[in-house]
Amino acid sequence: MTTSVSSQNDSALSVHVAHEELENLKKNMDIFFLIVMGSIVFFLQTGFAFYESGSVRSKNVTNVLFLNYLDTSIGSLVYLLCGYALAFGEGNGFCGTQYFALVDLPNGKMAHCFFQYTFSATAVAVVKSALHERCSMTAYITCIITISGVTYPIVSHWAWSPFGWLCNMGYRDFAGSGVVHATGGSAALAAALMTGPRTGRFDTKGDVNHIQPHSIPQAALGAFIFLFGAIAFNAGSNLTISNVKDGQVISLVCLNTLICVAAATATSLIYQRYCTASGRALNNWNFINMLNGSFTGMVVICAGCDQYPPWAAFVVGCLGYFAFLIVLKAMHRFQIDDATNCVPVQLGGGYFGVIAAAIFGKNGIILSPSKSSAYGLLVNIFGGLVIIIFSFISILLLYGVLRYFNLHRVSAQEEKLGLDLAIHNQAAYHVDEKEIKGIVPVEPTRNRDSQLKNIYIYNYSKIRTIAME
Amino acid sequence: MTTSVSSQNDSALSVHVAHEELENLKKNMDIFFLIVMGSIVFFLQTGFAFYESGSVRSKNVTNVLFLNYLDTSIGSLVYLLCGYALAFGEGNGFCGTQYFALVDLPNGKMAHCFFQYTFSATAVAVVKSALHERCSMTAYITCIITISGVTYPIVSHWAWSPFGWLCNMGYRDFAGSGVVHATGGSAALAAALMTGPRTGRFDTKGDVNHIQPHSIPQAALGAFIFLFGAIAFNAGSNLTISNVKDGQVISLVCLNTLICVAAATATSLIYQRYCTASGRALNNWNFINMLNGSFTGMVVICAGCDQYPPWAAFVVGCLGYFAFLIVLKAMHRFQIDDATNCVPVQLGGGYFGVIAAAIFGKNGIILSPSKSSAYGLLVNIFGGLVIIIFSFISILLLYGVLRYFNLHRVSAQEEKLGLDLAIHNQAAYHVDEKEIKGIVPVEPTRNRDSQLKNIYIYNYSKIRTIAME
Amino acid sequence: MTTSVSSQNDSALSVHVAHEELENLKKNMDIFFLIVMGSIVFFLQTGFAFYESGSVRSKNVTNVLFLNYLDTSIGSLVYLLCGYALAFGEGNGFCGTQYFALVDLPNGKMAHCFFQYTFSATAVAVVKSALHERCSMTAYITCIITISGVTYPIVSHWAWSPFGWLCNMGYRDFAGSGVVHATGGSAALAAALMTGPRTGRFDTKGDVNHIQPHSIPQAALGAFIFLFGAIAFNAGSNLTISNVKDGQVISLVCLNTLICVAAATATSLIYQRYCTASGRALNNWNFINMLNGSFTGMVVICAGCDQYPPWAAFVVGCLGYFAFLIVLKAMHRFQIDDATNCVPVQLGGGYFGVIAAAIFGKNGIILSPSKSSAYGLLVNIFGGLVIIIFSFISILLLYGVLRYFNLHRVSAQEEKLGLDLAIHNQAAYHVDEKEIKGIVPVEPTRNRDSQLKNIYIYNYSKIRTIAME
Repeated sequence: MTTSVSSQNDSALSVHVAHEELENLKKNMDIFFLIVMGSIVFFLQTGFAFYESGSVRSKNVTNVLFLNYLDTSIGSLVYLLCGYALAFGEGNGFCGTQYFALVDLPNGKMAHCFFQYTFSATAVAVVKSALHERCSMTAYITCIITISGVTYPIVSHWAWSPFGWLCNMGYRDFAGSGVVHATGGSAALAAALMTGPRTGRFDTKGDVNHIQPHSIPQAALGAFIFLFGAIAFNAGSNLTISNVKDGQVISLVCLNTLICVAAATATSLIYQRYCTASGRALNNWNFINMLNGSFTGMVVICAGCDQYPPWAAFVVGCLGYFAFLIVLKAMHRFQIDDATNCVPVQLGGGYFGVIAAAIFGKNGIILSPSKSSAYGLLVNIFGGLVIIIFSFISILLLYGVLRYFNLHRVSAQEEKLGLDLAIHNQAAYHVDEKEIKGIVPVEPTRNRDSQLKNIYIYNYSKIRTIAME
Repeated sequence: MTTSVSSQNDSALSVHVAHEELENLKKNMDIFFLIVMGSIVFFLQTGFAFYESGSVRSKNVTNVLFLNYLDTSIGSLVYLLCGYALAFGEGNGFCGTQYFALVDLPNGKMAHCFFQYTFSATAVAVVKSALHERCSMTAYITCIITISGVTYPIVSHWAWSPFGWLCNMGYRDFAGSGVVHATGGSAALAAALMTGPRTGRFDTKGDVNHIQPHSIPQAALGAFIFLFGAIAFNAGSNLTISNVKDGQVISLVCLNTLICVAAATATSLIYQRYCTASGRALNNWNFINMLNGSFTGMVVICAGCDQYPPWAAFVVGCLGYFAFLIVLKAMHRFQIDDATNCVPVQLGGGYFGVIAAAIFGKNGIILSPSKSSAYGLLVNIFGGLVIIIFSFISILLLYGVLRYFNLHRVSAQEEKLGLDLAIHNQAAYHVDEKEIKGIVPVEPTRNRDSQLKNIYIYNYSKIRTIAME
Repeated sequence: MTTSVSSQNDSALSVHVAHEELENLKKNMDIFFLIVMGSIVFFLQTGFAFYESGSVRSKNVTNVLFLNYLDTSIGSLVYLLCGYALAFGEGNGFCGTQYFALVDLPNGKMAHCFFQYTFSATAVAVVKSALHERCSMTAYITCIITISGVTYPIVSHWAWSPFGWLCNMGYRDFAGSGVVHATGGSAALAAALMTGPRTGRFDTKGDVNHIQPHSIPQAALGAFIFLFGAIAFNAGSNLTISNVKDGQVISLVCLNTLICVAAATATSLIYQRYCTASGRALNNWNFINMLNGSFTGMVVICAGCDQYPPWAAFVVGCLGYFAFLIVLKAMHRFQIDDATNCVPVQLGGGYFGVIAAAIFGKNGIILSPSKSSAYGLLVNIFGGLVIIIFSFISILLLYGVLRYFNLHRVSAQEEKLGLDLAIHNQAAYHVDEKEIKGIVPVEPTRNRDSQLKNIYIYNYSKIRTIAME
């Protein structure tokens, strides 16, 4: 009998060990999941850099790439110093109060911290993309610090921390249509409003001049990277892969993301081609419009991608394009200049996404009409609005100070010259002087002040001298 | 004794729980695997977009990028509506009949559906790459719909569904040399044949004019992305990672992919440099030829990458290049124009890969000569042929209709102007008019019809006015 | 009683099965981890290709891309034939002696082999990046073979194989600041020294002429891909994810990488802007300098990223930039030309990283001052030095032979013409001749010898005829 009992104890011990090992394996698998998804979301920075730098004029390309690269540096330091603490430290309903400068951050939360940083980087990237071709370095850097250190963390605490007041009210936003995109879009709107439009963007008559992207392939590269990253963005938002339901949620999320993006893209194409005067007159298919439609699809799907049945993802994508259109028209009407249409995409698409999740989701008012789902809709409408207002005001205050000291944008001279030469002394495209002796008679001067008067612009078309007024 | 029994029951229960948890973990790990691999395979779309847009002339770049982006939208909708059902729904030997529009798709199959979509997108991308610089939008869109909604799904049902007749005959094609690549290449051949060559591609004397890629860096970006994605393409084809043998298969697949690609690349270089007249005369190393060699390596390895010992992967890569060469010569001989050499790579490489798997694989006729392996070889030869013929005919029929209504290609005028301006009113590279006042005296007119007569082409070299005949 | 005992046996058996399944799952999860991380590290090749091709003049772009693509082919064949055997086969302290040509490689080591290849590819990529715009194909190919077949494998055996003498002495280098980066940087130094500077790089007076990157967006693309890959590079270096501590180590590694890169980037910006004469005079922010700072951060963090507390990662990043600066000044002082500043980044940053790990790591002399940590510091200082010297000498010997036969660089004529036309007969950017009739009167001749006298260079600025002296 003793052997039997001891073997029985062995067996129990062994079972205990198996369970412990399983728990460890699950933890590590979740970390693995967060690291891979976080890395791909981090790669979205490349998408922003190229979509934006392709979309501006050739005289501002280095500047756009510089700013995007800078993001990842300043943004990560600020987020790790302060942002993660405000967002996911224990605290009150308004913000967290633990883990500043990562002090006492338990090792088990580090992967979560890394992953959340990549989301913060996305929100930051959204904001700056409205400001290109005229924003000063000071404005830009303070703006990054504010968004990634304060505004975005506080919003994400409200909605995603178990302590957050919006979360506890029942606000639901799976992958951040509101928390990431509407926040970024709303901050971008405030910044664009305060910075003012690029010179020549709007006529005195009120006509809108389209500033053409200098390189469609560059912009397209960014767009393709967005496609790649959008899936990881939404799938990663589940945060775990080891629990029973995780696999199912993540699978659904991937399909819904595909469907919604495709629906929004198709809607944008059909609308532009057959329902606009210019599309019908020119018989043409507009590439940038298609990209904007597609991006809107990526934004609107976030909030409810774990909740929609596939048909709903399709419907939400189709409707989302019109949310984009409405905001776009408003931007043109009020002459607010946004270098990459990020406000219509992110604010229009983001807020619509938050609302749509509470309408078309499986607990939404259509699929389960009840008091509780009606309340959920109201909470999402209200929560999205609060997020937008908070984000708008925080950046408005910052820009109030910047404008007071006249630090918010570069001089008209620098804007005309292009920021590549004015701020970085580095044209984006270069033809070696040694190679073209006889065409350009003198070397570019090294002194920027004289450059401001008599400069060389290297661009695709030719090398030439422009006399500044 | 009672305590002992109850603890024993506890222990049994606990073991049961452990097993259940293990099963769940395995399922989720498989889903995680499919999502990550599928995402990277999806990123291959970026590779196609850039390899193709770099390979065409600067007047057709926007169009190529537009078409590639459109793929992901139309293609995914069509595949999810109809393709996945035909391919992997239960059904007869010819096609599946379940899951149309994802109805009743069990959640456990959603990740599989996502992953399979990314393969369908690859097949579609192959087809269109032959048609650039002259294909009409109508032809293009109907072609995407046919391939991703009907042709490719039915072929993949035959070979990869447990219900498929080819699968049950013993046809073996691990990652789709035949199912994906030969299908795509064969469809591309039919489409290229029916569309006709680009103006000026072939002389009346029968000489081949090489149309130079407008941007080698852009084409190279695509090629590097292919390298990145090829590993996930083959490794992901195992579909699971949680079974005992999975890790071993996947590891072997990765090494074999590396080896085969390297072997094909090296062969292409040595052959071009030392065995062709132009290579010897000019003493040069051709970049595009090397890329084609490398791509062929990626294609031929697919069918048997789980079966080859490493030396066989090397041999198959070396031989594969000659399959490419033979088809390439035939294409030139018959004056069939293929904008990116996709037919030689995908059809030549793909069909050779299917055959090679049954020759050099560990169950092939060399390593285990037997009646069964000889039968396997015959089945693969036959199966590959059937796939090629089916795919060819399906696209031939489609183009028969398109040609009847004269919808298969753009007008000669549009082709000469370039599709960027003709179809999209958007040049790929842009110099802002405001910036160059004095060089270009007038603004480009907005009306495309007048553009067709008197147009501005923005390209690398200069801005100029061309009077169309 | 019998039922009880038998059920007890069942239960024990079932526990046994559970443990076995767990072990299998862990093995497969590790393989999955290696494949994903390895794939992303492999993608770093794209980063090198674009950072380098953007950094050179427009006449050498195809060549740079060609060489980078070639790497992945020749490098992988050589590494799998010979490198992995020398590095990770069982053997003596100097090198391994098993697994040549993958013979008898157990399947369980294949994923490890794939992963280690991607590291070897990184080391190779570093070496060549110093040599662009003047290196001959022969020199280049022999150099790849030497590095990936002999030098790097032996160094990695010393430090990372359990048989290696440095490893057994206590040398610690988690992700290869020394093993990968200093090895590559030191080999690059030897090669750059023996190849000599590009024509015109240094004045006879000793002034340094900066050769401008021809395309900032292209270089930036490379840099962004480095950012993406750096995390996988360091996280993957843990080699497993299934053991209890793995998740924690990997999480810490990711955060430390982010922090160190950000710190080095910020330091480089602040130093250049406020502490250099040109930065203050021109009031500008230098983009390439920032990238170099950032790259240095990626290099210095490798050795100790599993050991640093976050604050230490920050400090190491800040200090690392100065290691870069010192080596950079020395390179300029001794007129050694390095096309992409890879020697300062990789050798300066790499060696500093090895030392820093033993100073600031949690077992380093600051956090646990003891005899053992002082010994650890000495071992790392010594080990890093030995690695650098070994790598330097191996390449010096190779170049001794190459110079003796005058095979080490292209002719002055070819260098002036640009390697794209001289070696590849393929300009990077192309304007179709048919399109510009009237501008270029004749077709480019096909014979390269006449080209060498009277050639067309297609580049951004214009199409023109240059008469070679």
